[in-house]
Amino acid sequence: MANHKLRVMMLGGLNEIGKNIAVLEYGDDIIVIDCGLAFPDEDMLGIDLVIPDISYLEKNADRVRAILLTHGHEDHIGALPYILKMINPPVYGTRLTLGILESKLEEHKLKDTAKLITVEAGSVVRAGVFACEFIHVNHSIADACAIAIRTPVGTVLHTGDFKLDVSPIDGGMMDLTRLGEYGREGVLLLMCESTNVDRSGFTPSERKVARSLEHIFLKNTDKRVVIATFSSNVHRVQQIVNASVKFGRKVAITGRSMLNIVGAAVELGYMKVPDGVLIDVSEINKYPYDMVTIVTTGSQGEPMSALYRMAFADHSQIALTSNDIVVLSSHAIPGNELLVGRIINELYKRGINVYHDDHEVHVSGHACQEELKLMHNLIKPKFFMPIHGEYRHLMQHKELAEFMGMSAENIFVMGIGEVLELDEHSCKRAGTVPSGRILIDGLGVGDVGNIVLRDRRHLAQDGLIVVVATIDIDEKIIVSGPDIISRGFVYVREAEELMDEVRAISGDVLTKSLDNGITEWTQMKNGVKDALTKFLFQKTKRKPMILPVIMNI
Amino acid sequence: MANHKLRVMMLGGLNEIGKNIAVLEYGDDIIVIDCGLAFPDEDMLGIDLVIPDISYLEKNADRVRAILLTHGHEDHIGALPYILKMINPPVYGTRLTLGILESKLEEHKLKDTAKLITVEAGSVVRAGVFACEFIHVNHSIADACAIAIRTPVGTVLHTGDFKLDVSPIDGGMMDLTRLGEYGREGVLLLMCESTNVDRSGFTPSERKVARSLEHIFLKNTDKRVVIATFSSNVHRVQQIVNASVKFGRKVAITGRSMLNIVGAAVELGYMKVPDGVLIDVSEINKYPYDMVTIVTTGSQGEPMSALYRMAFADHSQIALTSNDIVVLSSHAIPGNELLVGRIINELYKRGINVYHDDHEVHVSGHACQEELKLMHNLIKPKFFMPIHGEYRHLMQHKELAEFMGMSAENIFVMGIGEVLELDEHSCKRAGTVPSGRILIDGLGVGDVGNIVLRDRRHLAQDGLIVVVATIDIDEKIIVSGPDIISRGFVYVREAEELMDEVRAISGDVLTKSLDNGITEWTQMKNGVKDALTKFLFQKTKRKPMILPVIMNI
Repeated sequence: MANHKLRVMMLGGLNEIGKNIAVLEYGDDIIVIDCGLAFPDEDMLGIDLVIPDISYLEKNADRVRAILLTHGHEDHIGALPYILKMINPPVYGTRLTLGILESKLEEHKLKDTAKLITVEAGSVVRAGVFACEFIHVNHSIADACAIAIRTPVGTVLHTGDFKLDVSPIDGGMMDLTRLGEYGREGVLLLMCESTNVDRSGFTPSERKVARSLEHIFLKNTDKRVVIATFSSNVHRVQQIVNASVKFGRKVAITGRSMLNIVGAAVELGYMKVPDGVLIDVSEINKYPYDMVTIVTTGSQGEPMSALYRMAFADHSQIALTSNDIVVLSSHAIPGNELLVGRIINELYKRGINVYHDDHEVHVSGHACQEELKLMHNLIKPKFFMPIHGEYRHLMQHKELAEFMGMSAENIFVMGIGEVLELDEHSCKRAGTVPSGRILIDGLGVGDVGNIVLRDRRHLAQDGLIVVVATIDIDEKIIVSGPDIISRGFVYVREAEELMDEVRAISGDVLTKSLDNGITEWTQMKNGVKDALTKFLFQKTKRKPMILPVIMNI
Repeated sequence: MANHKLRVMMLGGLNEIGKNIAVLEYGDDIIVIDCGLAFPDEDMLGIDLVIPDISYLEKNADRVRAILLTHGHEDHIGALPYILKMINPPVYGTRLTLGILESKLEEHKLKDTAKLITVEAGSVVRAGVFACEFIHVNHSIADACAIAIRTPVGTVLHTGDFKLDVSPIDGGMMDLTRLGEYGREGVLLLMCESTNVDRSGFTPSERKVARSLEHIFLKNTDKRVVIATFSSNVHRVQQIVNASVKFGRKVAITGRSMLNIVGAAVELGYMKVPDGVLIDVSEINKYPYDMVTIVTTGSQGEPMSALYRMAFADHSQIALTSNDIVVLSSHAIPGNELLVGRIINELYKRGINVYHDDHEVHVSGHACQEELKLMHNLIKPKFFMPIHGEYRHLMQHKELAEFMGMSAENIFVMGIGEVLELDEHSCKRAGTVPSGRILIDGLGVGDVGNIVLRDRRHLAQDGLIVVVATIDIDEKIIVSGPDIISRGFVYVREAEELMDEVRAISGDVLTKSLDNGITEWTQMKNGVKDALTKFLFQKTKRKPMILPVIMNI
């Protein structure tokens, strides 16, 4: 054992937002921290989700002792329903984290086979040589933890996602004391999140939102209040409930994920709702406007969400009018600004006042610069690996660590799959393991790759033209066709002339090929493809996909 | 004449960002203000540009007396190369505006036929019954104007895009005096831009950027400085030149539009560059790093721009290293955040420090709330139509006008094509004229409509499957096929089994159709389509486009 080194690698969550997953390996033992999904980039057309490539873990499945979860957000647990079909080690998490996970596993029919083990802040999980302590942190979801892992060569501290909230809604302030004790004892490697490293100062307390909400309730005592937020932010929903109670309002919950998570949170005691406050959405019309608050999903403008359907007057149970106001208690994630803007416009068109960014109705769940410095100061690690961020965030986090006194050679900005090898005194890069992304499209896991995506982009850009002809290769004649079918290229009824030319050119190429004794399908098809591509680009400056189909009888 | 009313309508620029175009009509006379383009929404796959539907102007071409341009931005002049092929009235604009327009018209081979007439602030253009005075305003492009139009029923003031800059780089402060004189005389209708109506306070002066730039130059005296900004912001480029001169640097310009516009601006005297400061990009390697500034396009992350190519090490003449810093003197337009983020990450990966949002290297060109109030206060119009903004902006502008004392019934939040009818005392909605958007795709103007876009979205989402078979309808047999071709659906080499099933199902449906005496092509095709759609959705939860092609011999 004395010869072993600790190997640390991220299989996701570096140079990208999402699909966070860390792996620690020592001798025969492997543990995994988090197992998240990512949302597709805008050029991954038709893709629903992205999960990490865990072929390294699959290959070493018998050595994986545990999966430890820091909290219940999608980017930390969302890949588990897929991953647990490949490997099935015990999964450790706090009650709310596992509560949220369970409903996902149920959908994937994995509830009976998954091995879920509930822990709480302070619990120590022994997994092979590793002793892993869960430590309470604040975040935009309840029951979030950092994890301190004692290994034979020293302690690794993984922060998960965190912020410092000195006046949290529930669950207490992040456990600075326990973190500080680890720091005093000596931490070999700090793995710290980087999401908000480009923001100065401290992230405001969740409690700040309460004041803003009460102000809005006070100004709109005659209106129904509709509030959209992240379903997983149970403290936010708690504050909405509190404000509603204060102003004598009933609260109706809508949106599938909101119903699921609030249900779990109330059941597990993470939310406290006085009797008689929650009403079903079907009951809202029994109450006057000024007695109802509606809490909903859709704060990112998602086209199938409850808020979207309300905005576009397409919700079966809730009809918004100028007697409603809408509060977006959220911030648009980069890439979603246009979707959110579209909903706001639509609401305004229907005479509905919208409260959003300007009104302090949202605070972030991630540590800003001063909180990151606090973490570095408490932990004082020997080595540091910034995690959870795009490259610019990781680099800015490196700068921050240097500002805090670390020397540059002790800081490792890594890529996914890159291995860091540590003993008590040293830390160095040591090769790579397979890593990457697996695309989920419908039921397909990994069956859509670069070629399929390239074709989708090509089709999306300029559409396609199918050229079909039946030939008699022995007689060297065209028996039927060529017929031309186009989709997504041009409105055919108004481009008959162009289509006639396409047909004529295709016929010419085929006839000439046959006359010249060409019998190779590929050669014939390429002839048609080249001639049409050239002709159409000249005519339209577009390059539709050309699909020649030649059949022989 | 006494019976005529003034009709005012926007054919673009309401409930949208871009394609700004206003129309004023009195008796037989029509004038047009601006003629801009818009960039495609994210769901307009493959579309290059969007221009306004001007069929109303085409129908009344002989009555259009003039097109008046407020300034040279794309969203105010970009549609002209297309529009001037449909109608060809005289076009009035300031020197820089027409300078920028000319190079566009040249590309479209319209330079000889277009009737461009240069005006300057203070010029009055007579067009039919209208007398139109150009009034100097500040904006993020030089030579911008508001336009005051005297009509038989009263004066209309169109602000164009503007901000108040009390310490502008060049050209003087916005002409508050002249605007105030119109206000004192009495303005019937104010048409005022709304872009920044959701921002409180005043927009900072362009001059503020100089301080930030000098600070960056001072901190990086050993580095080459690469600055990306909007090519049309000649005052910004002037400040970059000034700072460079101060620090003894040569300036190289790159990027086609930057070269065009800076060329025009220097030639027309809008920029002053000391002799020997400008160098060609091919010469940059003759100078040490600390003696060179490079000014480039690409501040919005555009994939073909000079900055993008530099970031991805794909620029033929400029190789960036850690001896460079990059300044993004711009703000990401909503929808472009991810593209800009990608460039920043790439630069960081190559060891290049990036200065952007945090460093006060950009100011907006649009009036914030206090400047809008100033405009309302100077003009004190009888009626008001907020323009240039999404619906939420128009509504917020309405609120602002009410705050300034206007009564709600004198404020008209309109949609494109909606007509406002005015006489000396009254103003009311009076029907609509045709309006909308024309999509430009390559050389095609309007040949891509909703059906083509719907097909592109379908293809982008799940790809397609082509089923081809040749049948002998008389013999009721399949002569050849069915063959299956798929693109953008699934990687076929790894889904042979699925494709075999698709082939078998298609064959079954066709055989059964023939056996049942079905000879209708449509019925046969729909049979194949329905069977495959159902089968594939069950198997994959995807819905590729199914294209059955059946040929008869």
